[in-house]
Amino acid sequence: MLIHIEPHSIIPIYAQVRNGILEGIVRGDLKPGDALPSVRSFAADLGVNMHTVNKSYHELEDKGFIQIVPKSGAIILKPDEPTKERIDLIASTVRPLLAEALATGMTDEQVQDMIRSIQSSIKGE
Amino acid sequence: MLIHIEPHSIIPIYAQVRNGILEGIVRGDLKPGDALPSVRSFAADLGVNMHTVNKSYHELEDKGFIQIVPKSGAIILKPDEPTKERIDLIASTVRPLLAEALATGMTDEQVQDMIRSIQSSIKGE
Repeated sequence: MLIHIEPHSIIPIYAQVRNGILEGIVRGDLKPGDALPSVRSFAADLGVNMHTVNKSYHELEDKGFIQIVPKSGAIILKPDEPTKERIDLIASTVRPLLAEALATGMTDEQVQDMIRSIQSSIKGE
Repeated sequence: MLIHIEPHSIIPIYAQVRNGILEGIVRGDLKPGDALPSVRSFAADLGVNMHTVNKSYHELEDKGFIQIVPKSGAIILKPDEPTKERIDLIASTVRPLLAEALATGMTDEQVQDMIRSIQSSIKGE
């Protein structure tokens, strides 16, 4: 799996690692049962701090996407079904960003185009 | 303008205040030139800490939505055009949330339905 880290991005490195893994899951590059490398070797590969990868792994574990295997790395879990509670939680986080987009003058159609474009980009289409 | 504060939400109070103002702008309840109350009186009305409202105002000012008028409150600004840079910044914040939604098993169509539903809700439709 290739995760591209942009050291000068406004997105924190731990979030870039987390996002890279999530997008790997979406594309099917990472399937349930697949192993992620140990924190130490992944950090070395990416050229980032071990604590950074550790933080990414823990956030993904808290959200049920991976299970951390001490000293060995982590495995990708079969995701929970998208429950209404889960969808509501995601929607409540997306909502202020859409409000900001609309308040700055984007039209509904522009917002939906942006969403479709992000979806295609995540899937590498 | 009515902002409903949920004290027990996982969304911080300052963010709820900010979001309420943004959504007021989207709905047209708050128009360029309209005045927002002083931090002190707004905080009293909402039953929240003055520092909370102050933080909301400053974030909205940093993003160009309002101009703070010391001791008097703030006024709503005409938003900047949604530049490509601005849209890219919003997209980069939305992207990991969509990745999470898709990784948890939502389909593209479900994600787009969620977005449309949020847009309708913001506009009070």
